[in-house]
Amino acid sequence: MDGRWRRRYEGAVFEIDDDHFHDQCGVFGVFGAEEASNLAYLGLHSLQHRGQEAAGIVSSHGGQLFVHRGMGLVQDVFTAAQLDKLPGSSAIGHVRYTTAGGSHIKNAQPLAVDCGHGSIAVAHNGNLTNGLALRRQLEKDGSIFASDSDTEVFVHLIARSKAETTVDRVADALHQVEGAYSLVFLSPDELVAVRDPYGFRPLCLGKLDGAYVIASEPPAFQLIGAEFIRDINPGEMVLINESGLQSLRPFRTDAERRHMCIFEYVYFARPDATFDGISVYDARKRMGHALAADQPVEADLVVPVPDSGVAAALGFAEAAGLPFELGLIRSHYVGRTFIEPAQSIRHFGVRLKLHPVKSLLEGKRVAVIDDSIVRGTTSRKIVKMIRDAGAKEVHLRISSPPTTWPCFYGIDTPTRDELIAAHNSVDEVNEYVTADSLGYLSLDGLKRAVGGGGFCSACFSGRYPIPVTDDIALRRQLPLVGV
Amino acid sequence: MDGRWRRRYEGAVFEIDDDHFHDQCGVFGVFGAEEASNLAYLGLHSLQHRGQEAAGIVSSHGGQLFVHRGMGLVQDVFTAAQLDKLPGSSAIGHVRYTTAGGSHIKNAQPLAVDCGHGSIAVAHNGNLTNGLALRRQLEKDGSIFASDSDTEVFVHLIARSKAETTVDRVADALHQVEGAYSLVFLSPDELVAVRDPYGFRPLCLGKLDGAYVIASEPPAFQLIGAEFIRDINPGEMVLINESGLQSLRPFRTDAERRHMCIFEYVYFARPDATFDGISVYDARKRMGHALAADQPVEADLVVPVPDSGVAAALGFAEAAGLPFELGLIRSHYVGRTFIEPAQSIRHFGVRLKLHPVKSLLEGKRVAVIDDSIVRGTTSRKIVKMIRDAGAKEVHLRISSPPTTWPCFYGIDTPTRDELIAAHNSVDEVNEYVTADSLGYLSLDGLKRAVGGGGFCSACFSGRYPIPVTDDIALRRQLPLVGV
Amino acid sequence: MDGRWRRRYEGAVFEIDDDHFHDQCGVFGVFGAEEASNLAYLGLHSLQHRGQEAAGIVSSHGGQLFVHRGMGLVQDVFTAAQLDKLPGSSAIGHVRYTTAGGSHIKNAQPLAVDCGHGSIAVAHNGNLTNGLALRRQLEKDGSIFASDSDTEVFVHLIARSKAETTVDRVADALHQVEGAYSLVFLSPDELVAVRDPYGFRPLCLGKLDGAYVIASEPPAFQLIGAEFIRDINPGEMVLINESGLQSLRPFRTDAERRHMCIFEYVYFARPDATFDGISVYDARKRMGHALAADQPVEADLVVPVPDSGVAAALGFAEAAGLPFELGLIRSHYVGRTFIEPAQSIRHFGVRLKLHPVKSLLEGKRVAVIDDSIVRGTTSRKIVKMIRDAGAKEVHLRISSPPTTWPCFYGIDTPTRDELIAAHNSVDEVNEYVTADSLGYLSLDGLKRAVGGGGFCSACFSGRYPIPVTDDIALRRQLPLVGV
Amino acid sequence: MDGRWRRRYEGAVFEIDDDHFHDQCGVFGVFGAEEASNLAYLGLHSLQHRGQEAAGIVSSHGGQLFVHRGMGLVQDVFTAAQLDKLPGSSAIGHVRYTTAGGSHIKNAQPLAVDCGHGSIAVAHNGNLTNGLALRRQLEKDGSIFASDSDTEVFVHLIARSKAETTVDRVADALHQVEGAYSLVFLSPDELVAVRDPYGFRPLCLGKLDGAYVIASEPPAFQLIGAEFIRDINPGEMVLINESGLQSLRPFRTDAERRHMCIFEYVYFARPDATFDGISVYDARKRMGHALAADQPVEADLVVPVPDSGVAAALGFAEAAGLPFELGLIRSHYVGRTFIEPAQSIRHFGVRLKLHPVKSLLEGKRVAVIDDSIVRGTTSRKIVKMIRDAGAKEVHLRISSPPTTWPCFYGIDTPTRDELIAAHNSVDEVNEYVTADSLGYLSLDGLKRAVGGGGFCSACFSGRYPIPVTDDIALRRQLPLVGV
Repeated sequence: MDGRWRRRYEGAVFEIDDDHFHDQCGVFGVFGAEEASNLAYLGLHSLQHRGQEAAGIVSSHGGQLFVHRGMGLVQDVFTAAQLDKLPGSSAIGHVRYTTAGGSHIKNAQPLAVDCGHGSIAVAHNGNLTNGLALRRQLEKDGSIFASDSDTEVFVHLIARSKAETTVDRVADALHQVEGAYSLVFLSPDELVAVRDPYGFRPLCLGKLDGAYVIASEPPAFQLIGAEFIRDINPGEMVLINESGLQSLRPFRTDAERRHMCIFEYVYFARPDATFDGISVYDARKRMGHALAADQPVEADLVVPVPDSGVAAALGFAEAAGLPFELGLIRSHYVGRTFIEPAQSIRHFGVRLKLHPVKSLLEGKRVAVIDDSIVRGTTSRKIVKMIRDAGAKEVHLRISSPPTTWPCFYGIDTPTRDELIAAHNSVDEVNEYVTADSLGYLSLDGLKRAVGGGGFCSACFSGRYPIPVTDDIALRRQLPLVGV
Repeated sequence: MDGRWRRRYEGAVFEIDDDHFHDQCGVFGVFGAEEASNLAYLGLHSLQHRGQEAAGIVSSHGGQLFVHRGMGLVQDVFTAAQLDKLPGSSAIGHVRYTTAGGSHIKNAQPLAVDCGHGSIAVAHNGNLTNGLALRRQLEKDGSIFASDSDTEVFVHLIARSKAETTVDRVADALHQVEGAYSLVFLSPDELVAVRDPYGFRPLCLGKLDGAYVIASEPPAFQLIGAEFIRDINPGEMVLINESGLQSLRPFRTDAERRHMCIFEYVYFARPDATFDGISVYDARKRMGHALAADQPVEADLVVPVPDSGVAAALGFAEAAGLPFELGLIRSHYVGRTFIEPAQSIRHFGVRLKLHPVKSLLEGKRVAVIDDSIVRGTTSRKIVKMIRDAGAKEVHLRISSPPTTWPCFYGIDTPTRDELIAAHNSVDEVNEYVTADSLGYLSLDGLKRAVGGGGFCSACFSGRYPIPVTDDIALRRQLPLVGV
Repeated sequence: MDGRWRRRYEGAVFEIDDDHFHDQCGVFGVFGAEEASNLAYLGLHSLQHRGQEAAGIVSSHGGQLFVHRGMGLVQDVFTAAQLDKLPGSSAIGHVRYTTAGGSHIKNAQPLAVDCGHGSIAVAHNGNLTNGLALRRQLEKDGSIFASDSDTEVFVHLIARSKAETTVDRVADALHQVEGAYSLVFLSPDELVAVRDPYGFRPLCLGKLDGAYVIASEPPAFQLIGAEFIRDINPGEMVLINESGLQSLRPFRTDAERRHMCIFEYVYFARPDATFDGISVYDARKRMGHALAADQPVEADLVVPVPDSGVAAALGFAEAAGLPFELGLIRSHYVGRTFIEPAQSIRHFGVRLKLHPVKSLLEGKRVAVIDDSIVRGTTSRKIVKMIRDAGAKEVHLRISSPPTTWPCFYGIDTPTRDELIAAHNSVDEVNEYVTADSLGYLSLDGLKRAVGGGGFCSACFSGRYPIPVTDDIALRRQLPLVGV
Repeated sequence: MDGRWRRRYEGAVFEIDDDHFHDQCGVFGVFGAEEASNLAYLGLHSLQHRGQEAAGIVSSHGGQLFVHRGMGLVQDVFTAAQLDKLPGSSAIGHVRYTTAGGSHIKNAQPLAVDCGHGSIAVAHNGNLTNGLALRRQLEKDGSIFASDSDTEVFVHLIARSKAETTVDRVADALHQVEGAYSLVFLSPDELVAVRDPYGFRPLCLGKLDGAYVIASEPPAFQLIGAEFIRDINPGEMVLINESGLQSLRPFRTDAERRHMCIFEYVYFARPDATFDGISVYDARKRMGHALAADQPVEADLVVPVPDSGVAAALGFAEAAGLPFELGLIRSHYVGRTFIEPAQSIRHFGVRLKLHPVKSLLEGKRVAVIDDSIVRGTTSRKIVKMIRDAGAKEVHLRISSPPTTWPCFYGIDTPTRDELIAAHNSVDEVNEYVTADSLGYLSLDGLKRAVGGGGFCSACFSGRYPIPVTDDIALRRQLPLVGV
């Protein structure tokens, strides 16, 4: 069955789900710049691809924190009047993707609270593997939770810390949590940025004149005219205040055990981002090269599934010596919901979002390049669409290995049961997606294509760098439901 | 200067403040009725006069609590689709008034959280006198606060209680707090309603077929076809669950020390409400009788300031043997904000809301009846308006004593400095409001008019039944600011 | 059956219809004042009771007309930013009520068009009796209609006139139309106000410093600080431009045949309005006096149906020597739609809007005063509500005669079939509304109570001063439907 | 100065103008299909690129036309509930782009009116060259205009025709107008589609089971599962009713003088569209081939300005034997307005929309391919952005000739003064855009690349196939201004 269209109201409106993994967040921080909330607004805009369901900014001014959060895109959540009410020279921001169930204003970030140490706000990208266990313990100790998100665990741990300084309290908290986190904290006079010891999620440091800037991805610096300084290291905590920037290592020395999410390179990050000196665009092209070598195909042209498959397809075409063509056009005008068409024309699949260029495809043997297959439903529709447009053969090539395991480190994946490659051979998957052939890039090929080392590829291999303590199933049944 | 018009955007939009006291809340609860959230919706509608800035409902179904809150009137906050997402046979609801500063979704109620004892939601009418002190202590002990409201203190105390049952945990919490509270709690399988030992704020019990209903005022029962059973007693806790209703007395026997807010009779409550067997409408008429006796006036007609002054004016006219006329018409179409008129016609005061009937007033000696004077600004405008309409004399009569002290038990009052009668004699007040004469009902007269006994009249007398621990000034400067 | 609740969406939302007649419009105009659109905004606010479904303003500046219209209340349709975009020193405005079917932005007024004589805008209160016939003729001659409203007929006739001046062209148009109209026209440099020769609908002239102001009712002048000058006479046309004001009589001398709508006094107009020197409030009180004389009742108290029945009830009580009490409280918070309550508690009638004061009604013989009965459904519910509140007897007294004929002169009435008094005797009506007794004011009594002379009372008598040419039934089936 | 950022509110919000030409409309029609308005909704969605400011649908059912129009994108203008209120088996739709001045609901289409021949609705893509003259004449003859758009002229002419049938009346109207028009008319029982004798704007015919479908571009058929039949010919009128489809030639035989807008191939149309058998995508690639031959460049890589320059860049790279890279990334999240960033970081140009991929551009000689240059401001920013990203050389290549003349046939162009190439040599333009070299495709090269024949290329050549009667300057000063 095709799960891509979920009804929102009975018989009326669809939610458009593109059957991709979803990263759960992007974070941003700035300290020491005039109109900090304006910079956060722009920075979040350039991180918008990391989360389109909610956005928020907290600024600090005169010893107080000022908060605004809302559901929707950055440009819809903030009006000029609201930005004006976020004064001060430091700010943090957050964009968020959530699954339908947890999509509620109560989970929007940054989270901002008062505690015994004063006000503190936090923006979080990642997921804790012992978040639920800690939550249960904290609840047992008398804490209350107003949201479903792991992020609230951090502020409770910080609030309960007896340490003297913000950084020590944050360190106290971090020593108790396990999992993936790239975090920015804002207190009335300090900004703290931390990346977990594994470095699952990216986090970068930049400079704008005298001010420091933090962002999930470097293009956020580019947009505001800031200079990229360096990646924040796995296990590093950066403290920024009036005295400048201090780099701290709150974890024991053996704590650095880099496992950056390799899927950031495959799909999540912007192509114009660079992490650890490796350009995402270049990495994707090399995936295409490797894929062409690993999974060659007799074809007349190479067509990407836009936008994420484009760079890999360019690489594939280059390596295979085949022409590259934009045989699928992506609509700029598809929002998250759409009115359900008439019964007679229903099940028209991905057609709202992608459109085949018939003149290119007719009578051709087409190599289609996509970055991954999740449930298989989208791929099946794309194959059908290309075939309906007259292609003689459709060969699907995927620039990453079969996705066979869920992510517990910050990506919203379906359960293992829903991952088509988890329980089916490549041939069986191909049978479902109805291509003439299907080929995946090997994990080794992917790693070589990205280069460097120290990646988490648990979604492909099932080798999880941190064991998952929480009962993930429970997580989806937290008792409070916002509507 | 006249502070009634506060600008919201530079030079553009006014907020209309009617210079009255504002009650901060109305609460509602229902247990054991189908479509409980629908009943809560209707019940809140009939309590709308107790708070127009935010509304919310929490329902319980299948072990989960379902929440929706929003800013605005009940009918704007809830759509049919949203009510559908609040399933179950028990629900609590809340309407809220807040001052501009604290008017933010984060303070909307009911508050719903998860804690070690499971999910719990609470709706609160009142104000704690040691709320800030408790908050500081709880923060010191590691609790985090996400709102400015006292209500969050309750849930923290409950969360930290080691007691076994919901009622015992609630009792634990109540033994630590001081102040005014009429509360409804909802857990997945229980509804608990409590009124503080002083009974500052009203709380009533009703029945609808097999279901129990709780509401701040009895007209909420009338609207949904429920039967009024009785007032919940000061210091009484009512537990409603599948086994039926249980009345508990969590406080020591000497704990009942009734001090119901007398201003509920003067102004806040609906005229069709009855508390402790005393009809609000009747009480107001008797205030009019007493006022006519205490502060007689030579006049041609008696005119109320609508709507709150109507019943007292009827009583006044009856006792004085003078004709009663609706010489001031109230507009039904004035919302909370209004675009600022041209410079040339500014300062047009209360004219948007009240309109004089010239034909009645021209050449007449008019006795104007209002319920209270806060800053004096509105009264001054009303006197001027009536005089401009041609009245020969304007005699202002107030159906309560001079308001000289702020309320700390659930009413949003200005500081003492802003209360015109706090620092001015009646003659001086009259000089400001420019009436030909001004007369207030005496406190004794008011008490006799209401009848019964055991009232809080601190706003008139300064005799506060509970000392205020908190530094109220601090309260207005809580660090987190939502925009 | 009870038709008061019409569903808007299946099973979801009610429209609240108060089973009253509805006036279709209020008009406003100002010439020669700075920030004219601001004055229009305020003026329309004070005419809001004449139409709550749409509002609009057209201003003139630099030879151009500037237009903004929208659905809803005046304060919702206009933002400060939008008023800023309506520059100039002259403006006209309109508020509109429409039945559900024709409720669409295309029918919002003022209507503003370009024609061979330049730009012209018009705001209209009334209804043409040959509007459909003229429309058919104009269509035959090549005109196109973009709305359902009569008002478009005026501008077509003006556009087709060969006369040299605006007033002559307006006169040309007026000589062709028949029916009820109080009109304000705005061209880039002139404002023209006209009242039809019968004077069905009111229209008044005021002055604000050097500027002239036009409004349906005098309270609009009061609000903006303008002075009431006089009523515009039936058949009078007033031209206002840079040279000042000119009063014209475009109709033949026998043309003045005053038939002002007597229902304006009974129900439509504001109580603080005065027409032809007769105060609406006073007239209503005299209706109460006459009603008490005509239809005496043995009762313990007199209760009005608020707000329209209040003045008559005061008169009734005065004349009958009975106490007047506000035994029914009207909610300020009922908008036009409301979510449908649960099946089990449906049919709860007028309870959202009106609430009985039990303490007043219990065990009493109650004389209830209302202004009219349309379908009888509301009256029936009110009687039941009062009886349910414990009244021993309920005696309904109506301050106007039985409504037996539809209005064709600007009031939105149901068809004759739906008017309960059209086909039932007073006894039969009483049987339906289930009162202990029912009494209407006689037509003679009503006329004497209002005083003066020259009224249209066709809705009571069926004596229509202008025969209706149009097939009214057709009017409801105009082909274009906006959604 | 850079005019791309126009303030909307003082100091607060920008409108983002991408300095491109804008097509003014897309049209759609369907006759004989269930849920016709649903099909129109989907069809308009696939034509969304032709107009993003307003959208509308008119459907026909039971002899009545049902209308809904609104400002914004198709998916924002229509809710499921509103589509439900557009019943019937035939419908027409429209999407519209307008310049800021004329952007108002009154200009939204389809226009629907009543006239002597019944109801008629029309959706129009194009622009009349004698529209203003006809309007003046019609106004002189007594017609009124409620909008600024040419489209109203059509319905007036039709309304005034004495002919017996719809097609004859439409033909009557068409014989009087001159200019560009692709039109769909809907009467209660007929759909008429017409393309002007020059065929300036495209119009296509499709079939969906038994129903006929009309659309500006064939991808609209693809989306709803309809089959493309053929282009509607220049000068052809197609009548569709219960009897089927009839092709008519209302113009004299010499009337066919094909001048299809060549810019549809260069920029406007979707790449997956095909007109007259020529694929837009293929044509753009051939433009790239020709451009590489005409304007060769020594470069390391070829980078398109996305999305419109992609196909030409692929062709260019192919022909030049250079690598093609997506060196500029386009954001999917930029709407039409954006809050102005801080003063200090202002003038950040196109950066919100386009982002350079530094790793690709650094140290490279880059050939940048765009489709056209209008004012030059965007090109200048793009060149600077690429250079700032580290490119050694930036060579700009344009896949069309210099744009030197405004369009009067349906494209919203700036005045000639604003077209940078109108008054500057290629070298001077290059000096402004600061590239290392600049080259345009020749007009001959363009025509050969597209193939076929009979194109309007007036914007490049100044050779206008129809002389412009109207004073275009006047058009921008029509008197009625909506806000």
